[in-house]
Amino acid sequence: SSMASKDREDAFSNPDVQQMLLNLHHSMVKTLIDSETKELPVCNFKQPEELLKALDLEIEKEPASNDTILDACKSVMDYSIKTASPRFMNQLYSGINPSCLAGSWVTEVLNTNLHTYEVAPVFVMMEKYMMRKLSKLVGYDNGDGVLCPGGSFANMLGMHLARVQIDPDIKSKGMGNNKKMVLFASSEAHYSIAKGASFLGFGESNVVRVETDKIGMMKPDVLDQKIQECIQQGSIPAFVMATTGSTVLGSCDDLNAVADVCEKHGVWMHVDAAWGGGVILSEKYKHLMNGVHRSNSVAWNIHKMSTGLVQCSIFLTKSSGMMEECNRFNAEYLFQPDKHYDVSYDIGDKTVQCGRKVDILKLWTLWKSRGDNGMAKQTDNAFENAKYLVDQIKKREGFRLVLPEFQCPNICFWYIPSRLRNKEENADWWKEVSKIAPQIKRKIMEDGSMMIGYNPLTTKGYVNFFRVIITNPMTTPQDMDFILDEMDRIGHAL
Amino acid sequence: SSMASKDREDAFSNPDVQQMLLNLHHSMVKTLIDSETKELPVCNFKQPEELLKALDLEIEKEPASNDTILDACKSVMDYSIKTASPRFMNQLYSGINPSCLAGSWVTEVLNTNLHTYEVAPVFVMMEKYMMRKLSKLVGYDNGDGVLCPGGSFANMLGMHLARVQIDPDIKSKGMGNNKKMVLFASSEAHYSIAKGASFLGFGESNVVRVETDKIGMMKPDVLDQKIQECIQQGSIPAFVMATTGSTVLGSCDDLNAVADVCEKHGVWMHVDAAWGGGVILSEKYKHLMNGVHRSNSVAWNIHKMSTGLVQCSIFLTKSSGMMEECNRFNAEYLFQPDKHYDVSYDIGDKTVQCGRKVDILKLWTLWKSRGDNGMAKQTDNAFENAKYLVDQIKKREGFRLVLPEFQCPNICFWYIPSRLRNKEENADWWKEVSKIAPQIKRKIMEDGSMMIGYNPLTTKGYVNFFRVIITNPMTTPQDMDFILDEMDRIGHAL
Repeated sequence: SSMASKDREDAFSNPDVQQMLLNLHHSMVKTLIDSETKELPVCNFKQPEELLKALDLEIEKEPASNDTILDACKSVMDYSIKTASPRFMNQLYSGINPSCLAGSWVTEVLNTNLHTYEVAPVFVMMEKYMMRKLSKLVGYDNGDGVLCPGGSFANMLGMHLARVQIDPDIKSKGMGNNKKMVLFASSEAHYSIAKGASFLGFGESNVVRVETDKIGMMKPDVLDQKIQECIQQGSIPAFVMATTGSTVLGSCDDLNAVADVCEKHGVWMHVDAAWGGGVILSEKYKHLMNGVHRSNSVAWNIHKMSTGLVQCSIFLTKSSGMMEECNRFNAEYLFQPDKHYDVSYDIGDKTVQCGRKVDILKLWTLWKSRGDNGMAKQTDNAFENAKYLVDQIKKREGFRLVLPEFQCPNICFWYIPSRLRNKEENADWWKEVSKIAPQIKRKIMEDGSMMIGYNPLTTKGYVNFFRVIITNPMTTPQDMDFILDEMDRIGHAL
Repeated sequence: SSMASKDREDAFSNPDVQQMLLNLHHSMVKTLIDSETKELPVCNFKQPEELLKALDLEIEKEPASNDTILDACKSVMDYSIKTASPRFMNQLYSGINPSCLAGSWVTEVLNTNLHTYEVAPVFVMMEKYMMRKLSKLVGYDNGDGVLCPGGSFANMLGMHLARVQIDPDIKSKGMGNNKKMVLFASSEAHYSIAKGASFLGFGESNVVRVETDKIGMMKPDVLDQKIQECIQQGSIPAFVMATTGSTVLGSCDDLNAVADVCEKHGVWMHVDAAWGGGVILSEKYKHLMNGVHRSNSVAWNIHKMSTGLVQCSIFLTKSSGMMEECNRFNAEYLFQPDKHYDVSYDIGDKTVQCGRKVDILKLWTLWKSRGDNGMAKQTDNAFENAKYLVDQIKKREGFRLVLPEFQCPNICFWYIPSRLRNKEENADWWKEVSKIAPQIKRKIMEDGSMMIGYNPLTTKGYVNFFRVIITNPMTTPQDMDFILDEMDRIGHAL
């Protein structure tokens, strides 16, 4: 057929295809080198309409040539953000490890799903190995886990398990017949608690936000009191989400104190360590997760502090076997009991997905290439750079830290232009300060010199401030100096 | 620091790293060539314990060298299933398009998330372009969509939207205060309807399965009757899931007939076209989705019939704006209203994920490289091979089709060994037949000559049969002959 012949042209055995892929390989590696050595700007900003013109997204009826695909891929790289750059500090992920990339490329070549041993033998064994290793790291002697499409999803799996633990009938009967179930998290906790509560049928208004202290740690006595109120009102306290590394301030809840409250009331304790989980790798910083072994489940994004490639989100639970209990539906087309191998290796019923993107190989190659010691050093390095940044901010005029102390390497500060310094800090003054970060952001995006996010924080009443996130192991103290110099240069006369 | 120095070794600017990646590139391309030309066995089967010994998954404290990573990646490829092989017909995905692979590799290099324009400008514009194109294809004039981590998740998004349409307060108040909500799908529909009902809080027992006819199509009159019963019992019919391409039999519901029933009762109609969606690309087969424009939402996995790389799952909805209505939580750390571009391009609140794996580039490069015509031919080619297989099965002794007719290119049949031919077909006889497929499967896995799944189908009372799935454009009629010859060779004396 004509398709077959077109397809033979598109085959890997076609030398033209091989040449295209080889050219692309060189172009990709060059982009990465130029990104990490800062030869390329972090971004080549275009407004949406301009970008559309530059890209030419149109798809025609007829096939595009290999050259066209190669050019398009190069163009995509040109106009995309260089998250591998040591000056990309806009998000909780940054930097690319070559071994991790190797693993992710191979994953695409093998193109399979993590649901049965027969289609993913290597990946099933690898996920089992890593989940055991990670479970032990958080102190679950007999825990289990699964890789998820994102930290929000991992938090939702925690809510789902907690709910079934309260009432196994919910799996079958749904939420209609139960007392109201209430979820608790600090006011600094990630908004996936709200998205998840809505998606899973708890309802967003049944999320109780618990006040935090001056560095953003959940107040355990307030949590205790809110849980008591919930019980007095005839509702069920269903799920407490503690946070290691809050998204904006990097706050780490006192997990032992939270566990005391959870144990007292018999409530499922989940730790959202999506951002901060990497601390447990380091002797110096693992104290930030003291008490995590007392929790029932943990979410941890290796693609954040540990610079795995997006997505690399782990859900761990102490209650081995409960994932299957919650999610087992035994699809007979997928899980045949009479296969010629031990079908306990068919792990698809651990989660609510059927097909599941393989994220385990890149995690394994990342960790293997660094070893446990290198994983620890990656964490230490991020904290060292963050500490340097904090020290410099304290020394410099015009910069003001948002907190007296930061627990994780996301550092928040205001920039105060000259005209606003040494003035009375009333509402009008703060209103003026709130306009500064967006203006500096616009300029640095247009320059492409670096990328840093800003935001307000209404829970604390703070106006727009910068949030510098340090994870890329290629980032150095000199980069910290650079960003402060640039901000001062752009901002002092604003 | 010591980390920094280790990390400089791990940098892309290190020539040793470049050499490792280049060697890996050649090894990956060789694996793909050998897979598609059948130089490599589809699988190199090892029992789990043997595989563990062959792989050496252990991670040490100290870093592994680039050579170790390269060897490990090669070993992973050796022991993994060659889903690119034209004789991998075990799952609904198979075959790898070189341009699609190019897009997926570039995606890893750019390592970003599809939540804001500022971190993913190209991908936001590309997803918007493709979702418009796909919405129009299914007949939604003003529809919208989003890429999802799998078809099960896309089906769940449909349930979620349907629920909020019934009662917008559910987003906030949860499911406790409502009448019971009931979901409907055919007995052949994918089990994600059950997983989703459980996860989202509807409860699995509130899924009503509707009887199908002799080729697996949902009976619209039975659907109508079940919805009426639901209303009579004081419950709310919340969601009807029609199927285009059921997972096992490839059945395609009559969408116009289902739409008539849904419109009559005002129920959200979702089409699970995860497997069959590719038919709409072809003039010859798009009639199988006649009426899809009358639905409210569609799930469609491009990684199945159209051979995108896993995962490439689309959720489309006619109700543009409703995804945001259901999922908007306006995280202030992510979506700042005062940015220097049109923030309607920050699309993170379309779904319940926060970070989201970028799946759009590989979809775009796949489609661009084939053009609309090539996408159509890919569908046609799969159907042509399937038709050839059916014709051969009809001609051969010992093979028996499960259905008189198949609507999609998943073809189901029993193999009957010589000793069981021309015997009385009582319960004992069927019991014997049920043991044949697992034995043939074991042998072909051990030989590595091909990979084909089997399963029973209790909804129809069928014992174990083979299900051959044809999507790989490299598959030819000769491969169809090969699999039948092999089955006969292995099976006739069983």
